[in-house]
Amino acid sequence: MIRIGIVGYGNLGKGLECAIAQNADLALFGVFTRRNPKDLKIITEGAGVYSVDDILKYKEEIDVLVLCGGSATDLPTQTPLYAKDFTVVDSFDTHAKIPAHFAAVDAAAKESGNIALISCGWDPGMFSINRLYAGAILPDGKDYTFWGRGVSQGHSDAIRRIEGVLDAKQYTVPVEAALEGARSGKNPELGTRDKHTRECFVVAAEGADKAKIEETIKTMPHYFDEYNTTVNFISAEELKREHSGIPHGGFVIRCGKTGKNGENSNIIEYSLKLDSNPEFTSSVLAACARAAYRMKSEGMKGCKTLFDVPPAYLSPLSAEELRKNLL
Amino acid sequence: MIRIGIVGYGNLGKGLECAIAQNADLALFGVFTRRNPKDLKIITEGAGVYSVDDILKYKEEIDVLVLCGGSATDLPTQTPLYAKDFTVVDSFDTHAKIPAHFAAVDAAAKESGNIALISCGWDPGMFSINRLYAGAILPDGKDYTFWGRGVSQGHSDAIRRIEGVLDAKQYTVPVEAALEGARSGKNPELGTRDKHTRECFVVAAEGADKAKIEETIKTMPHYFDEYNTTVNFISAEELKREHSGIPHGGFVIRCGKTGKNGENSNIIEYSLKLDSNPEFTSSVLAACARAAYRMKSEGMKGCKTLFDVPPAYLSPLSAEELRKNLL
Repeated sequence: MIRIGIVGYGNLGKGLECAIAQNADLALFGVFTRRNPKDLKIITEGAGVYSVDDILKYKEEIDVLVLCGGSATDLPTQTPLYAKDFTVVDSFDTHAKIPAHFAAVDAAAKESGNIALISCGWDPGMFSINRLYAGAILPDGKDYTFWGRGVSQGHSDAIRRIEGVLDAKQYTVPVEAALEGARSGKNPELGTRDKHTRECFVVAAEGADKAKIEETIKTMPHYFDEYNTTVNFISAEELKREHSGIPHGGFVIRCGKTGKNGENSNIIEYSLKLDSNPEFTSSVLAACARAAYRMKSEGMKGCKTLFDVPPAYLSPLSAEELRKNLL
Repeated sequence: MIRIGIVGYGNLGKGLECAIAQNADLALFGVFTRRNPKDLKIITEGAGVYSVDDILKYKEEIDVLVLCGGSATDLPTQTPLYAKDFTVVDSFDTHAKIPAHFAAVDAAAKESGNIALISCGWDPGMFSINRLYAGAILPDGKDYTFWGRGVSQGHSDAIRRIEGVLDAKQYTVPVEAALEGARSGKNPELGTRDKHTRECFVVAAEGADKAKIEETIKTMPHYFDEYNTTVNFISAEELKREHSGIPHGGFVIRCGKTGKNGENSNIIEYSLKLDSNPEFTSSVLAACARAAYRMKSEGMKGCKTLFDVPPAYLSPLSAEELRKNLL
């Protein structure tokens, strides 16, 4: 059994607890929290809840520590810190800052001789792998990534900060015509506005200026101004009833030419349709914990990403079983 | 530059020659043939055509030998044979015989200290990888593989062997309702007849008994009797005009449950839509040649499959470029 420690018990940590229960070779040792451990109830019988301050006491009882904090403030410090004492896995997802995060984690993991597997999830993660495979196979081509239909936490939060807004959910939605273009084999140029629209569901305070809220959303730099955005004002009840899930997903599509004169088009498409974004991400983390454990067992060290992981390391099946049943 | 030797110059070998030309770090050393080398014209300037009997003379000039023969009779002998002297890559695709092929190739490659990367293509190959990833991430689920719409060479050949048939093409076609079922999250049981239909386009000899041909096709054991099959008699001209391509493709779909009580469904779908089946397969072979070269350079030995290859090894980009641009 691979003994897992979870740091952080938000949506991701809770999802990981459920994912561990689905894998016979993984066992939850315990959850580490910044809150008072007494205030936190977990599902798994026999697993403990501990203060994150005591984590080093359990060093010998944990094979892989999975960091389930956020990319903005938690992981940039946590992953290098815990890589000093543990095999660690994270889902760091701020694409632009991955090289810096990698460098910091790599230095810590190389010094301690541990493995740190970062940016495990679906984007970065499974989408990244698919961009890599598709580009390696079809070099004369172009790839497209679409996200959605799904809830963007960052965009929802941005709306909630507007004066007069009580609550909000924002969906990122791929434009059907753009998806068709990506699949057409014509490799069209698609701008930001062409690829996605943004749908907002907003609960306004009584007496709030809805026209002004809508204008503020639609013109918000970076978040909304480059997109076609629709704003729907709904009641708190409707928001709760219809929009309490955290679905997401998306598409990675690459069309590449083959043949003597590039006369043939070949289209590779990978897509996800997820009822629960955090539960799927944590399911990837669970498989990555297994892979990290194996890499560490083989004496590898330093920071790695899914690009470095042989697919077989993610599966509980033996090499023989994989070849016989899945190849 | 990684210097590639090609053994066999059918559709696959020709496709590989084109694929090599698309990759700046790959160079074609030459093509090895059982035919008279003088009878064979290749595209690549500066590359040679040699008798396969002379292949050992060029051992030092070839980094990776890619075997482009068939799985029925060529590869079972060729891959173990050439693994004695070369880093080799093949596209062995008889699923049921993979364990035996692996064992034979592994013994040869381990003895010589070479790397042999087998069963590289799309199924086995990219589809296999996707079955593995999806199953590792979503253990509580079920996966479905669909093939087509595309030409099955084996089924076309089987029709051609019927008395009174001059030529034929057979398309394997996924059933739309079955695809929708696989994507529904309900994980239906789908039998052979539910998943695919078979469409046949047949050129009959003048005066041939078409009713009998149709009956012979539809009741042919293993090939057609378990499927709903349609038979269309057309002219040789129409067959040439409308059915001379070798398109193929398919879908790997897995739906898996997550959450405390499996209350959320998540669907992973990978699909290919290929104008040219052999050119796509050979594009995978080209990327695999790069990976095999790297594995050999790192001192690995023995028989491997794509399950054992870290994705990064398939790409010409550096680890830094991959993390910065694709992660």
